[in-house]
Amino acid sequence: MLLKRSELVMHEFELIKKYFSNLSLDNKNSLNLNDDVFFNKSKKLVISVDTYVEGVHFVNFKNPDLVIKKILRSSISDLICKGVKPKYYFISGSGNNKSFTKKNIRIISKSLKQEQKKYSIFLSGGDTTFSNKLSFTIISVGFSNKIVFRNRAKLNDDIYVTGDLGDSFIGLKILQKKIKLNKSLTEYFKNKYYLPNLHLSLTKKLLSFANTSIDVSDGLVADLEKLINNQNLSYKLFMGNIPISKNLNKLINLKIFKKINSVSCGDDYQILFTASPNKSRIISNTSKSLGIKISKIGKICNNSDKSLIIDEKNKKIALKYKGYFHKF
Amino acid sequence: MLLKRSELVMHEFELIKKYFSNLSLDNKNSLNLNDDVFFNKSKKLVISVDTYVEGVHFVNFKNPDLVIKKILRSSISDLICKGVKPKYYFISGSGNNKSFTKKNIRIISKSLKQEQKKYSIFLSGGDTTFSNKLSFTIISVGFSNKIVFRNRAKLNDDIYVTGDLGDSFIGLKILQKKIKLNKSLTEYFKNKYYLPNLHLSLTKKLLSFANTSIDVSDGLVADLEKLINNQNLSYKLFMGNIPISKNLNKLINLKIFKKINSVSCGDDYQILFTASPNKSRIISNTSKSLGIKISKIGKICNNSDKSLIIDEKNKKIALKYKGYFHKF
Repeated sequence: MLLKRSELVMHEFELIKKYFSNLSLDNKNSLNLNDDVFFNKSKKLVISVDTYVEGVHFVNFKNPDLVIKKILRSSISDLICKGVKPKYYFISGSGNNKSFTKKNIRIISKSLKQEQKKYSIFLSGGDTTFSNKLSFTIISVGFSNKIVFRNRAKLNDDIYVTGDLGDSFIGLKILQKKIKLNKSLTEYFKNKYYLPNLHLSLTKKLLSFANTSIDVSDGLVADLEKLINNQNLSYKLFMGNIPISKNLNKLINLKIFKKINSVSCGDDYQILFTASPNKSRIISNTSKSLGIKISKIGKICNNSDKSLIIDEKNKKIALKYKGYFHKF
Repeated sequence: MLLKRSELVMHEFELIKKYFSNLSLDNKNSLNLNDDVFFNKSKKLVISVDTYVEGVHFVNFKNPDLVIKKILRSSISDLICKGVKPKYYFISGSGNNKSFTKKNIRIISKSLKQEQKKYSIFLSGGDTTFSNKLSFTIISVGFSNKIVFRNRAKLNDDIYVTGDLGDSFIGLKILQKKIKLNKSLTEYFKNKYYLPNLHLSLTKKLLSFANTSIDVSDGLVADLEKLINNQNLSYKLFMGNIPISKNLNKLINLKIFKKINSVSCGDDYQILFTASPNKSRIISNTSKSLGIKISKIGKICNNSDKSLIIDEKNKKIALKYKGYFHKF
């Protein structure tokens, strides 16, 4: 999710499609720039590139340790959700001497070390440049002869998502000082915002049952629409099945937030995928054996049906804000 | 060459060494972060990552076509100078709606297409984000089971450089409005600044004769010192042999610039390499057959000798400004 929207008029998608996809026409590996990763089957190479700007992708740099962890996880999440284990990463940081003090550099280095251990990845290079605006570009590299593509959903597929959605959004609101909660809830949601729980152990399994997948970074609905944006398909989401944490449920019961809005804001880095109904049992068994929550939250439908979200009483839910669609 | 220096106190090298090289200790492919590229021999994978910031790496964005060409060439130059043909590139651009107007995006797309044709490379992905500060990160990817490393110079090696040095610096001074020349010279030097002539055809040949190599981006002396920074070696450069263009020679004769200063400012993207004296003939033949100027400009010496630059009369030349050493 982005903190700030640009005033630019074109969606990232449209722009890429219009002006840049012809540059990759001879290059089927780039998936016509309509996927989150670059995949070269013959070289078994998978690459993702993402840029994170202060004030846009992260609130500020007061917690360099947490910011670095979050953006690194966001980057490797692109590979993990495609069924690929990340192996190497590169960081290019642009900033000034306020952001890159010796103290901060020490903290960044320490955080990266912890993440490397957690996810078995290695820093492999990068660049440092001077800029008054702090930003990072992270490149994640993995090796696989197979990935789960976008736009491969099949009619009647079940729609699944891992973990819980929406907690990260509450964490962001706390960091933006837009809401105030008690100490333990504050701690809980801030952690969910900064330290998304990636499911590395699910990576290879995904290849065996998911038809198509994406990570939830821009919001459940926005990402679901991105997932099938080149297909003549629609979706039906069952509101009651969308997984949220007990803590978020408390806030929803207190009517502080609406569920549909909380889960539409992204930054969850959970895996959203579709699978044929006959994979239901293997998915449920995988969920149990790995101890990873996987919820069946909807259905892929015919394009003649209109995409919709329905509540427990089968009533259609209106959606004010679909999530973030990247501009330009 | 950078237009502006940061106030930060540490050299990029020292910083990387101190805080980040331990993160790649288990990862010999990253060359301990002390090279310009990442190289994984078993995967035959070579990757370079560079960030270019407006006002730091390029003057402004008044000529998006030329800026894009220049930074893309600067990026693939990292691979070419290591003996590796670039194949794929990724661009992440951060900017606002003033930089990324539809017109500019069309121009960028067209320029990239021209470069793709010239260098047989393909756009493979990237990211676009909103930022008031314009910057680009470019990732270049190539495949090779062999590269020319840094820090592999041998005692008594000859030092070579391709093409001419210094023209780019004059182009920059013109763009910065620090000097004014007649129309045809202005055109000549601006072109040299924006469109460095990369020697793709030399790439694979380099592997057969160069012991160590780097591209001249920060300045001849700065890059030569970087090239052997981990070795107990020194160098002797023969001023008279350092290749410059006829046009630059004119300005030097008019005492507008000193030769040593012009060639110490970088952005030339020529290949600087060392080779054993017995490779002299094959290098001279390669130069002739490919029509690429390759000049023998110095000698690698014992560390007990002090590195120096000598003129035609064997007199030592003092160097005020070695070139750009990246800060932080």
